[in-house]
Amino acid sequence: MNPEKIATSRCYAGEQRRYRHESDTLSCSMQFSVFVPPGFSPDSPVLYWLSGLTSTDENFAQKAGAQRIAAQLGLVIVMPDTSPRGEGVADDPEGAYDLGLGAGFYINATQEPWRRHYRMYDYIVDELPTLAEKTLGLTHSRRAISGHSMGGHGALMIALRNPERYRSVSAFAPIVAPMSCPWGRKAFSHYLGGDETQWAQYDATQLLASNPLPVPMLLDQGDADEFLREQLQPERFVHAAKTCNYPLDYRVRAGYDHSYYYIASFIEEHLRFHAQHLR
Amino acid sequence: MNPEKIATSRCYAGEQRRYRHESDTLSCSMQFSVFVPPGFSPDSPVLYWLSGLTSTDENFAQKAGAQRIAAQLGLVIVMPDTSPRGEGVADDPEGAYDLGLGAGFYINATQEPWRRHYRMYDYIVDELPTLAEKTLGLTHSRRAISGHSMGGHGALMIALRNPERYRSVSAFAPIVAPMSCPWGRKAFSHYLGGDETQWAQYDATQLLASNPLPVPMLLDQGDADEFLREQLQPERFVHAAKTCNYPLDYRVRAGYDHSYYYIASFIEEHLRFHAQHLR
Repeated sequence: MNPEKIATSRCYAGEQRRYRHESDTLSCSMQFSVFVPPGFSPDSPVLYWLSGLTSTDENFAQKAGAQRIAAQLGLVIVMPDTSPRGEGVADDPEGAYDLGLGAGFYINATQEPWRRHYRMYDYIVDELPTLAEKTLGLTHSRRAISGHSMGGHGALMIALRNPERYRSVSAFAPIVAPMSCPWGRKAFSHYLGGDETQWAQYDATQLLASNPLPVPMLLDQGDADEFLREQLQPERFVHAAKTCNYPLDYRVRAGYDHSYYYIASFIEEHLRFHAQHLR
Repeated sequence: MNPEKIATSRCYAGEQRRYRHESDTLSCSMQFSVFVPPGFSPDSPVLYWLSGLTSTDENFAQKAGAQRIAAQLGLVIVMPDTSPRGEGVADDPEGAYDLGLGAGFYINATQEPWRRHYRMYDYIVDELPTLAEKTLGLTHSRRAISGHSMGGHGALMIALRNPERYRSVSAFAPIVAPMSCPWGRKAFSHYLGGDETQWAQYDATQLLASNPLPVPMLLDQGDADEFLREQLQPERFVHAAKTCNYPLDYRVRAGYDHSYYYIASFIEEHLRFHAQHLR
């Protein structure tokens, strides 16, 4: 079934749109946002943006100021939600922000009560791009992927597992080693169960050890990020990349925290990085 | 009492801050946001931004992307809340979005139950700038004012009544004639009572007839704005300005609606307009 366009606003001479569709993968109704730049054509390149904990498809659309540069570069941006949604979709009974709704972690859950709906990996890698690119009339599948925090984990992990699908990847303050931090361990134990050998397929730092095909990669981190030491630990990923000679452009930003004020300050560098590889 | 800084994030090499203070004018605790550009000095110019219905001090800070240009121009931005807040502050008993909390309309109420707290005109014209400029260490009082929708009404009305206080004024999709539209008539009748002669002091279109001193003025309007005909009616203001030869730079934006996607698309033009007059 085709996505239904439920909102549209002109934005930097392009269009900011919102769609709703029934997801076969997630067994629920989903929404996603899209920026269509002026001068759009069927071979326009497309960036997939994955948001962080508690976000929906709208946070990046509203707060990053990315459309200004995407309009200049002729870049489509597709912004999915961060988890399945709606009646009947399991949530954390205590309403924790880091499990359940808004916290899908871009993985396929295998455990109850999550495994029916929480299949965000398949949704982001397969169903959403197929659907979005068909709806927009994109024919060339020139894709890049980026994200923030939990979405930075998603972008790195998905690009490392699917290097043939993405021309480039970048991440702001990503959870690079979910198996080694509280956010990731909590989510993976609930969604995937106690067998940690099942976790490694979704851990970007672990994936580096399997000698993946290199994708041009930009990793961005603010050094005043309140989650830096306990949750993010970029040094784990940087070290693993060095060990296996994986090419990595690592940029540390003095004084910046985890907020969208940080993302907005550097999104232009990321979009220009992607545009270069999407040519 | 000095405002307390309750949050700060680095943003475009400057600082996005949030302050809390006890307001004598409004008899409640208030918050406001500030962007301090890199290269700040005591004679930096300052733009006051007034937001629209339902907003707080954070909407413009998060959604307009103004900090990027303000950083380039060395412009401070002060973003107040849109109404008094907190326990004991009257609100519409039915929770309407266009009366009470989030809907102060930048006027001094004279009627019960509003008149104790709803004194946003005095707050924006006097208390807030005195406090904010002292807190930031600004010494030169080079001020401009701008806003959106209800805040566009506030900016135009306040600049027309205080031309000596502002070097320039601009407005996105302002309520130019509150006495002549449902939003304004509802708010003014509750806050000011039934005597419409008391309303005219807060109606930008009415104020033009009193032959005010000209302030450089930019009026911006999207022609796909969903509130254009019933609530905004810019033609009333444009006509009044022509009638009294008031200089007005009126820019109509084809296809743009009332959202922050519209504001973000043109905020750069507004900040450059103000910077030119703040030199």
